[in-house]
Amino acid sequence: MQEIQGGVCAAEGFTANGIHCGIRKNKTKRDLSLIMSEKRAAAAAVYTKNLVKGAPLAVTKAHLADGYAQAVICNSGNANTCNADGEQVAEEMSSLVAKATGISQNDVVVASTGVIGQPLDITPIADGIQELAAGLGDNSELAAEGIMTTDTVKKEIAVSFEIGGKTCKIGGIAKGSGMIHPNMATMLVFITTDAAIEPALLQKALSNDIKDTFNMVSVDGDTSTNDMVSVLANGMAGNPVIAEENDDYKTFCEALNKVTVYLCRKIAGDGEGATKLLECKVTGGKDNETSKIIAKSVICSSLLKAAMFGADANWGRVLCAIGYSGADVNVNKIDVSFISSKGRIDVCVDGAGIPFSEEKAKEILLENEIQILVDLKSGDCEATAWGCDLTYDYVKINGDYRT
Amino acid sequence: MQEIQGGVCAAEGFTANGIHCGIRKNKTKRDLSLIMSEKRAAAAAVYTKNLVKGAPLAVTKAHLADGYAQAVICNSGNANTCNADGEQVAEEMSSLVAKATGISQNDVVVASTGVIGQPLDITPIADGIQELAAGLGDNSELAAEGIMTTDTVKKEIAVSFEIGGKTCKIGGIAKGSGMIHPNMATMLVFITTDAAIEPALLQKALSNDIKDTFNMVSVDGDTSTNDMVSVLANGMAGNPVIAEENDDYKTFCEALNKVTVYLCRKIAGDGEGATKLLECKVTGGKDNETSKIIAKSVICSSLLKAAMFGADANWGRVLCAIGYSGADVNVNKIDVSFISSKGRIDVCVDGAGIPFSEEKAKEILLENEIQILVDLKSGDCEATAWGCDLTYDYVKINGDYRT
Repeated sequence: MQEIQGGVCAAEGFTANGIHCGIRKNKTKRDLSLIMSEKRAAAAAVYTKNLVKGAPLAVTKAHLADGYAQAVICNSGNANTCNADGEQVAEEMSSLVAKATGISQNDVVVASTGVIGQPLDITPIADGIQELAAGLGDNSELAAEGIMTTDTVKKEIAVSFEIGGKTCKIGGIAKGSGMIHPNMATMLVFITTDAAIEPALLQKALSNDIKDTFNMVSVDGDTSTNDMVSVLANGMAGNPVIAEENDDYKTFCEALNKVTVYLCRKIAGDGEGATKLLECKVTGGKDNETSKIIAKSVICSSLLKAAMFGADANWGRVLCAIGYSGADVNVNKIDVSFISSKGRIDVCVDGAGIPFSEEKAKEILLENEIQILVDLKSGDCEATAWGCDLTYDYVKINGDYRT
Repeated sequence: MQEIQGGVCAAEGFTANGIHCGIRKNKTKRDLSLIMSEKRAAAAAVYTKNLVKGAPLAVTKAHLADGYAQAVICNSGNANTCNADGEQVAEEMSSLVAKATGISQNDVVVASTGVIGQPLDITPIADGIQELAAGLGDNSELAAEGIMTTDTVKKEIAVSFEIGGKTCKIGGIAKGSGMIHPNMATMLVFITTDAAIEPALLQKALSNDIKDTFNMVSVDGDTSTNDMVSVLANGMAGNPVIAEENDDYKTFCEALNKVTVYLCRKIAGDGEGATKLLECKVTGGKDNETSKIIAKSVICSSLLKAAMFGADANWGRVLCAIGYSGADVNVNKIDVSFISSKGRIDVCVDGAGIPFSEEKAKEILLENEIQILVDLKSGDCEATAWGCDLTYDYVKINGDYRT
């Protein structure tokens, strides 16, 4: 497996574009993205578990009922959620894509992100659709920009891998930043691949993958109303169609995981206001679930997040977060270490503090990627969760988000 | 029932004191408090559900096993948690109180608050105990100061009420501010009363009360390792002993609730870095549990808390927090309003936005006590939760807490 360029356009037969159509006031910000497959593709998606769901999710779910799709349209600047006419507007977006590109309206994945509860005016989208479709090309980065809200960097990746002697590619783009605490689905992530795989297996691969990837990311504990991860697989790599859970399926899942883990880390590290990516790795768990609950509880702790912002090795907050996580764990066996590119420092052994150099700890914690290693010493299971620090800028961004 | 002065010293037979003994470096900060009853008192307590528990909690639990206690000692500046010698030190604190005051070591409630994982040196406590005991008097406010950490205001209240023709009093002090997200117990709250009530009923009254009071408070979602609420009832008011759930018991519970709700609001409003008290009142719930889950989810949302700091009527975040709360609710029936001393503004009806004056909303939200009213329109049950806004100062305080 090899990392390659091209994002969602890396896979054979996929093009993309992103423009400013006028939903967002700032004309320098793209606000409408389109991803298109030359051929109709097997499609799968997972959605937020928030009971308040964005209207586009309902429309997408209906469109993917047959297991196929050909395009993704997504706007930023407005979530199209809690609006009386939401589903109608989402269908109109699909219809505009269908008319501009000649595909079926039922083959469009629709997504929106931005403010909740403000009607989404279809006019700028209708006005911009021709420009958007005309510009389809090797423009993954423009599509990645068009779905950003408070994100500071665009998030894209692609990898190539081999199945049945054929080179396959898979790539993705993501939108993260705030209201990020996925539950069974997440933020907006669009993945494309030219691997040939049956829809049901594609869905299974995605549904399994997100349990250990996007569902292990949290920026602020708020599960969005519009979270979605979708994947389109158009089969143009020419590999033997993956129709059972064989070695080819395993290879595909590994490639998918490479893309999703990369995007998880990018989303966490670019959390609203974040200066640091936090990765909590739990080892020695008696089972996977315990390890996952603990890893996620640690990266969700506001107190720990603020301590990491201040490069303060306040490991008591790690223990505290483990203790209230709800996981059944022997707290007197827990070891905690902090790791970064500057080295590793052990701070807690068997649930109690040990003497350590505050100076060395500071040096380690001043880096922008911090791993918090928690060893439960109670088994062989592991889990990793990703988050970010809590900063002044998080408060600033969210204290006045709508203006 | 009537609000009176005196805090934990309002009830007959109770004295208190608070001094600086040297646990905290800052000599202007009191760090050791003592509350004493002239007579041995019926005693009850509830404790954190965090699996990582402060050593003082284990010692207190053992001391209260017989249902009686006579004194409370509490230090700030060090949580005496995750230390190998923690319980030994907590017992030494009890022993020092016993020796200085002539009561039994087993009648001492012990509590600590501050940094986790740093050994608590008994020396300054041993050195200060004589001064502490000698100064016992009508000094509730000194005791309230001695348990403060990042609190900015001391929290005390007392009320008088009548049982069987006798005037009874009940008062309390509390310590809140950070790591506040109680689960079955809470922060540190010490309540004293001269009402006569049997230990088992006192425990029942307390255990029932906290479900709707302290367990409905959250500052930052972090459930502390040292949360505790204790109540001492020395019977010196001379009322007929409350030994069954009769009208007297009901009167006592009402007085207790007056004290606890007051302290909840004080703790939430003085959350670390907070500029505003947030109160989420949920009405129209189909059951109490649903109403409580929703109220707590709303006041825990980092996004909503930041929006309130910015006086931004971003009600979509209220809907979002309801949607991911886990409560089974019809999101298309929800109404949301914001209320303060400047008036009320309705922003969402039947789960969708309605036009409202942003100017009026701003005026309402600039106040320092905000009520978020959520009407589920699905029944008659209500719940209230208390929290605070998320501010730059929360990040500042917790980015460098230990120095």
